[in-house]
Amino acid sequence: MASYDTVVLGGRIVLPGRGPVRADVGIKDGRIAAIGEGFSSGEADEAIDAEGNLVLPGAVDAHYHLGIYRDITEDAKSETPSSLAGGVTSIISYFRTGSHYLEKSGPYSEIFPEVLEATQGHSYVDYGYHLAPMARDQVGEIERLVGEDGVASFKYYMFYKGMDLAGGSSDAAGYTMSENYDLGHLFEIMEQVARVQASRHDGSRVSLSIHCEQPELIRIFKERVQEEGILQGLEAYSASRPTLTEHLAVAEVGVLAGHTRCPVNLLHLSSEEAFEAALELKRQHPALDARLETTLHHLALTYETYNDQRGKVNPPIRAQSDVDALWRGVLRGEIDWVCSDHACCSEENKEGDLWQALPGFGGTALIYPFMLTEGLRRGLSLERVVDLVATNPARAYGLASRKGAITVGADADLAIVDLEETHPVTTERLLSAQDYTPFEGMELAGWPTRTLLRGQTVFADGESTGSPTGTYLKRPLTEARPLSTP
Amino acid sequence: MASYDTVVLGGRIVLPGRGPVRADVGIKDGRIAAIGEGFSSGEADEAIDAEGNLVLPGAVDAHYHLGIYRDITEDAKSETPSSLAGGVTSIISYFRTGSHYLEKSGPYSEIFPEVLEATQGHSYVDYGYHLAPMARDQVGEIERLVGEDGVASFKYYMFYKGMDLAGGSSDAAGYTMSENYDLGHLFEIMEQVARVQASRHDGSRVSLSIHCEQPELIRIFKERVQEEGILQGLEAYSASRPTLTEHLAVAEVGVLAGHTRCPVNLLHLSSEEAFEAALELKRQHPALDARLETTLHHLALTYETYNDQRGKVNPPIRAQSDVDALWRGVLRGEIDWVCSDHACCSEENKEGDLWQALPGFGGTALIYPFMLTEGLRRGLSLERVVDLVATNPARAYGLASRKGAITVGADADLAIVDLEETHPVTTERLLSAQDYTPFEGMELAGWPTRTLLRGQTVFADGESTGSPTGTYLKRPLTEARPLSTP
Amino acid sequence: MASYDTVVLGGRIVLPGRGPVRADVGIKDGRIAAIGEGFSSGEADEAIDAEGNLVLPGAVDAHYHLGIYRDITEDAKSETPSSLAGGVTSIISYFRTGSHYLEKSGPYSEIFPEVLEATQGHSYVDYGYHLAPMARDQVGEIERLVGEDGVASFKYYMFYKGMDLAGGSSDAAGYTMSENYDLGHLFEIMEQVARVQASRHDGSRVSLSIHCEQPELIRIFKERVQEEGILQGLEAYSASRPTLTEHLAVAEVGVLAGHTRCPVNLLHLSSEEAFEAALELKRQHPALDARLETTLHHLALTYETYNDQRGKVNPPIRAQSDVDALWRGVLRGEIDWVCSDHACCSEENKEGDLWQALPGFGGTALIYPFMLTEGLRRGLSLERVVDLVATNPARAYGLASRKGAITVGADADLAIVDLEETHPVTTERLLSAQDYTPFEGMELAGWPTRTLLRGQTVFADGESTGSPTGTYLKRPLTEARPLSTP
Amino acid sequence: MASYDTVVLGGRIVLPGRGPVRADVGIKDGRIAAIGEGFSSGEADEAIDAEGNLVLPGAVDAHYHLGIYRDITEDAKSETPSSLAGGVTSIISYFRTGSHYLEKSGPYSEIFPEVLEATQGHSYVDYGYHLAPMARDQVGEIERLVGEDGVASFKYYMFYKGMDLAGGSSDAAGYTMSENYDLGHLFEIMEQVARVQASRHDGSRVSLSIHCEQPELIRIFKERVQEEGILQGLEAYSASRPTLTEHLAVAEVGVLAGHTRCPVNLLHLSSEEAFEAALELKRQHPALDARLETTLHHLALTYETYNDQRGKVNPPIRAQSDVDALWRGVLRGEIDWVCSDHACCSEENKEGDLWQALPGFGGTALIYPFMLTEGLRRGLSLERVVDLVATNPARAYGLASRKGAITVGADADLAIVDLEETHPVTTERLLSAQDYTPFEGMELAGWPTRTLLRGQTVFADGESTGSPTGTYLKRPLTEARPLSTP
Repeated sequence: MASYDTVVLGGRIVLPGRGPVRADVGIKDGRIAAIGEGFSSGEADEAIDAEGNLVLPGAVDAHYHLGIYRDITEDAKSETPSSLAGGVTSIISYFRTGSHYLEKSGPYSEIFPEVLEATQGHSYVDYGYHLAPMARDQVGEIERLVGEDGVASFKYYMFYKGMDLAGGSSDAAGYTMSENYDLGHLFEIMEQVARVQASRHDGSRVSLSIHCEQPELIRIFKERVQEEGILQGLEAYSASRPTLTEHLAVAEVGVLAGHTRCPVNLLHLSSEEAFEAALELKRQHPALDARLETTLHHLALTYETYNDQRGKVNPPIRAQSDVDALWRGVLRGEIDWVCSDHACCSEENKEGDLWQALPGFGGTALIYPFMLTEGLRRGLSLERVVDLVATNPARAYGLASRKGAITVGADADLAIVDLEETHPVTTERLLSAQDYTPFEGMELAGWPTRTLLRGQTVFADGESTGSPTGTYLKRPLTEARPLSTP
Repeated sequence: MASYDTVVLGGRIVLPGRGPVRADVGIKDGRIAAIGEGFSSGEADEAIDAEGNLVLPGAVDAHYHLGIYRDITEDAKSETPSSLAGGVTSIISYFRTGSHYLEKSGPYSEIFPEVLEATQGHSYVDYGYHLAPMARDQVGEIERLVGEDGVASFKYYMFYKGMDLAGGSSDAAGYTMSENYDLGHLFEIMEQVARVQASRHDGSRVSLSIHCEQPELIRIFKERVQEEGILQGLEAYSASRPTLTEHLAVAEVGVLAGHTRCPVNLLHLSSEEAFEAALELKRQHPALDARLETTLHHLALTYETYNDQRGKVNPPIRAQSDVDALWRGVLRGEIDWVCSDHACCSEENKEGDLWQALPGFGGTALIYPFMLTEGLRRGLSLERVVDLVATNPARAYGLASRKGAITVGADADLAIVDLEETHPVTTERLLSAQDYTPFEGMELAGWPTRTLLRGQTVFADGESTGSPTGTYLKRPLTEARPLSTP
Repeated sequence: MASYDTVVLGGRIVLPGRGPVRADVGIKDGRIAAIGEGFSSGEADEAIDAEGNLVLPGAVDAHYHLGIYRDITEDAKSETPSSLAGGVTSIISYFRTGSHYLEKSGPYSEIFPEVLEATQGHSYVDYGYHLAPMARDQVGEIERLVGEDGVASFKYYMFYKGMDLAGGSSDAAGYTMSENYDLGHLFEIMEQVARVQASRHDGSRVSLSIHCEQPELIRIFKERVQEEGILQGLEAYSASRPTLTEHLAVAEVGVLAGHTRCPVNLLHLSSEEAFEAALELKRQHPALDARLETTLHHLALTYETYNDQRGKVNPPIRAQSDVDALWRGVLRGEIDWVCSDHACCSEENKEGDLWQALPGFGGTALIYPFMLTEGLRRGLSLERVVDLVATNPARAYGLASRKGAITVGADADLAIVDLEETHPVTTERLLSAQDYTPFEGMELAGWPTRTLLRGQTVFADGESTGSPTGTYLKRPLTEARPLSTP
Repeated sequence: MASYDTVVLGGRIVLPGRGPVRADVGIKDGRIAAIGEGFSSGEADEAIDAEGNLVLPGAVDAHYHLGIYRDITEDAKSETPSSLAGGVTSIISYFRTGSHYLEKSGPYSEIFPEVLEATQGHSYVDYGYHLAPMARDQVGEIERLVGEDGVASFKYYMFYKGMDLAGGSSDAAGYTMSENYDLGHLFEIMEQVARVQASRHDGSRVSLSIHCEQPELIRIFKERVQEEGILQGLEAYSASRPTLTEHLAVAEVGVLAGHTRCPVNLLHLSSEEAFEAALELKRQHPALDARLETTLHHLALTYETYNDQRGKVNPPIRAQSDVDALWRGVLRGEIDWVCSDHACCSEENKEGDLWQALPGFGGTALIYPFMLTEGLRRGLSLERVVDLVATNPARAYGLASRKGAITVGADADLAIVDLEETHPVTTERLLSAQDYTPFEGMELAGWPTRTLLRGQTVFADGESTGSPTGTYLKRPLTEARPLSTP
């Protein structure tokens, strides 16, 4: 007779390759030990009633910025509960040297342990890191970072070639604390990533994520917007970094990735033009492993309806036609995953001159509520929503052996969600340290009533529960523990 | 406490979206009631030991010809055990009016009940039927066949426009027992199928399968081969129906399907040229639902290594370069499924003049052994093999709610397979009435040691066990029975 | 000192690669002996004053049907003056065996001399012939026809596979007087034409012209139009042979021409869909020599404005959107030439049942007036008009060494045209035996005031002058006579 | 009776749209007054015997660098005779501010008159100028330069974004004497050129020529070549600026030109990869006016056969496979014209460190000899050779009304060429001040025996004759003088 630590009873479970099925889940030692029908509360120490609710795999928020504007530890403490509120149980956060974050440069062999140290013991979700080789020496660290440190994905920021994060200064070298952060540098990163990937034979994926905005064009458009002085707020910001700058950046990436055969992730596509350019890249390089990402806010907001400077983000919030194009890509399966690009950025950081205001804001708490509400309304199936926020990013980033799907043997990361009841978005509900939200007032269903991380309830009744038990995800994850109990 | 009819213990189960996991399966009332770890034999009336074996979903052999050359009942009795030997638990067989089969024409409202009657009680696997509207009046029956008779897929044979099945006679009308079996007829079928598909809102798929060979070209090439008299056997037959004839046929289908928006399945692609034409069709019509099929024999045989007339089949066995191209398509996921095109065709039917010999032969018993042996060797994962022979055809043809994947709630159709031991292909091992096999002597692993249909062991120790319990699959299948036990 | 037979003084000459230049032309022995400035009437026996007029090369009407409905001799006598009225000095007429024309079949070695005999001495313009191999034996004559008889272009009619010329009967074999006039037959023609072309090393072109309409689809659509009985006249006729039938036909040609590498001419494209299919054919086969033709009537008429049954023609008159698409193709240089498809078809032939009425009508007299009026209005330059009706067809069909452009050494075939004065189209003005015209009433400029054939004035003051001096154009034409006078 | 200043008798004249014709040319007042047969020496003051020779239009060398390394006046005096030796009668020279040339920056309103002044009276050929807006203020001068100064084409050098001309220094701003010479600057130039082009309604063309090499990649590759120290000479130089750098540059241009609709000329394509990228650009932007250029040296030399540092040029000399690909493009008509990129660069400038040696060398004297020898050998017709070196560049750059083709009314710029006799290339024969030539020793036919500029013999017997009578070509040229003599 099977005996579980916990059983989740009576929910509709969204199973991979199947969609929602009325079944129960038995959890033992933090993993899913059984999925079946007719389990009883007597079989386990704890029984969770999921009757009337959906049971989803914990989401994988693949784009996150722990510690970009605040102390890493502080961010880990305050922001990962927000993830739990959205049903997110794993995050992969971007880290880089240079300005912001730790405000320093140097070898990752020294700095990355510091980052891990700062996070360790403070995160409420499991977490991994993408790292950005900002200086040439760091490119030489890629192989070791993959092999020893569990960092299976890297990043290049195209616009740092010519400006800082806020777009206010053209002192790129000062901001990145490095020389020659240009397409030559990108080329060298791609070569390294491709080389490491080619040397692997376990089917795992090493990849490079790219922020696609071309700064030489931004220089011109920003100046025009400033000189003309007609547009305001997010519309001005979008005009200063028009979609053509994404288009050009994607075209540049296409040539380099096609040549080096480097697996790439085109991050936070914000516009129809960027998306079309990405599809063209794939058409031109059919054998290239290129995956497309968009964000909650690019699927939710427009400068037409939310022109508030607090929505400043890179790439910018666009027009309704762009939102519609991105949804088309999501519906057709051409966009691979949706993430939050969560960066806790206080209202204070957003004030004053548009060009000095810091970009980014939080959204991780809306991963499931937004996608379940808006995605289902637009025709996504439940199974596809799960693919977009859990299964696909887990596969792209080396987590699939334990995260992103409800299967026997996987970590018991579950979001139990109420699809019936709707609530408006409020800052309180998001459990973040950020003191406003651009999503304020949206009426959403699909809020988690309970979130489990490796079998433990870590969020319930609108609050995170217990201590920060998140662990570092050394990627690619493997099935370290035996599937049968000893 | 859960109590099962049967438990399958200790196997490596290939789970959708996950791949092989060491786990157990609990079966109740013919369906998978639970998947988990640590189930014990005491929890069930029957315990099956799968230790050291793979547990796969029963395959769905989507291309079959029950009764084409023999009595339907006879074929059902003798050939469906062969399917079980290959781990196949569901077949979808093609039926049409005209010569062969029942040797008559008329409305399907009269003839299809006869077909079902002839099969009922004689099949060892679950079975559905694709029907081919051969006469104009039958096109008008499509809507009713879908709505009432559970026939969700149809067929058009392009070469019957100009010749008979064996390619020996150009009396197409005599063979099909119909007039104007041409592209105009195909157009009208496509319109109907597309119309019925467009009227459905349950996500189910109604489609048209197409045999792509162009008879006007075959006329020329066959004559040349006959006049030149140099080539022999399968090489002669391939030259008489060269890959250009498939290419032209696929191009014609592209224009018509693009216009009508009819979901299509391009059957048994046999060559690089056919496959490239199919990819081009998809590029030109990105919004069209077009799926690609190939067969075991087109992946296994060439006229270079097997030039024996018994291998006559439409489209013909090709060259090694074609085999390699088809495998590329399979590996890249561009070909959607692999089937047997099983037609029991006795040695007697294959003798004499090449142009009179009947085409086709059996292969259903090799579905898992061949794909596990050759597919894994070429780099397919276990999960992808299952997609190709079970999950994908089940999805394409309206069976996915109960067939094609191991998930809780699905029918307990399982193939328990030994991946270690190899055996050569012999006619005895195939359990078919056919008295030879073109696959003779291939050394394959991956033979089922046991096959379960809806929870019952129907094949074990190289023999089918028990009586023919296969039921008709009224498509699209729905989850008729409640998932919780009463 | 130069001494000419004739000088043409003071006109604006449209020179190749240059456009209109005010210059004079000196003619000697039927050829252009000099082009220059300041020639005087004293230098020649005859001086023609072209002051205020355009001087254009005689047009090459590349699609013509001498003798289709009447005696060849009779048509030559009555219709070639109509060509002169439009500035046409060379025609290439289609001839085939089977019904209409000579109402018989047999080898071209016997029949073509008969055709030449019937034309000889009766044509007012120089003339060549395209021949259509209707029977298999005629395919074997291609090499000899090119090498000995000066026939450098051939034809295949796709719709004769399934119906007669009028579309009223499906007795194709009876109409063509041949068996198997299908895509297999087309394939064999293409092979022969490609083989002959590949064996030539003088840069000359041998090609196959194709009438692209697919009869199997027409069968269905015609029946629907007849059964529904709603549409009338040309709109009904267009609906019975919708643009999809051209699309499918062009797609079929693409596969076969791509395989055989046969140079092809896609004749009288009538619709946007046909034209787009032709562009797609070229994209898919960038190395293939494929040229596109449209006609005056497909650029001029729509069933929306002229729904009169007398406008019945294959392919049919279409809608305004099709006309606009064809003009786009002409303006962009994607359509290579414009012709009349002239077939003298009396009003009597057009009466009665739409499906029995004979297709085709005359238009050769409008080649320059229509293209100069409508083409210039839509933005064509004079040089491009000349390319479309003279230079390009001369190049495509082996006439360029002497026809199609005003250069020293070329035949002195000239159209002297008044661009200022407009006249309405009337049957009288067209000088044809046809007793009506679908172009009736169009107000056109650009009528020739005088036409010269090899230096002789053969049309002036609205009448043809003199006797029929047209000679047979044995293609490819070569510069048979020395350029310097002896 | 016509009376000419000069007649050219008995040659084979290459006429547009016709090819070679045996005819005579009558010249009056510097223009072609007549082309005809049987002209006599008595009709003119001077008779030139061209019997046995070809008569070609004077070539238009569209890429030239007067004054880049020496005084403009000096270069005009010494290098334009070299052009005459190659049958070139018009050149269009590139000029820019910044280092080299006049070694200064400032408004073209001040500097361009200086350039014209320095050339005036010193050139033996007619000449125009392309100008490169290096500084932002110069972009604002484009409209005036077109409208008033006859400058109808501009230039952008992509690699000056990151390095100097020799590739030795990364002080781009110092070299260009401007800030922000980046893709933003290119974008602004394109906008201006496109705007000016769109405002013209005379059919004339204003365009932007682009040197496509991407400096951010060159940075990496140059460093590797230097560090590895294995490759030498031109092979090292090619490896330091690999074809990928051209590919990326062309891709960047595609996005910007596609957006702005700026007519572009992709200069001196050197490699298969660059050429393929250019074709892809055209496929992606079918409505864009994009023309392709290559040079004599990229068609003639490889680092495999000429690895001498004196052949340093940007982009570099490549491999044989690149030469073959460029010839394919020339033969298929995909490359629009061929030029010399003539820059007189003394041997002294080529000595020492590879990275400091100055790029470029002369070649204008080989325009006709090389293209007639090598082009005809590879299958070009005489007419196509003339298109490539005369007609096409004349059309692209606003000279076609008077230059680039032998037609009545055009300037009597003629190259009388001997196709029979071959001579090896020697520095003496090139009549240039450059003291070596990478083409040394090539055995070429097609050397001009005489060159006429506007009717005057300016080169004969291997020497330029007379004084420098070249005039400035204010583009677009118009037919300023009446075609009839007064």
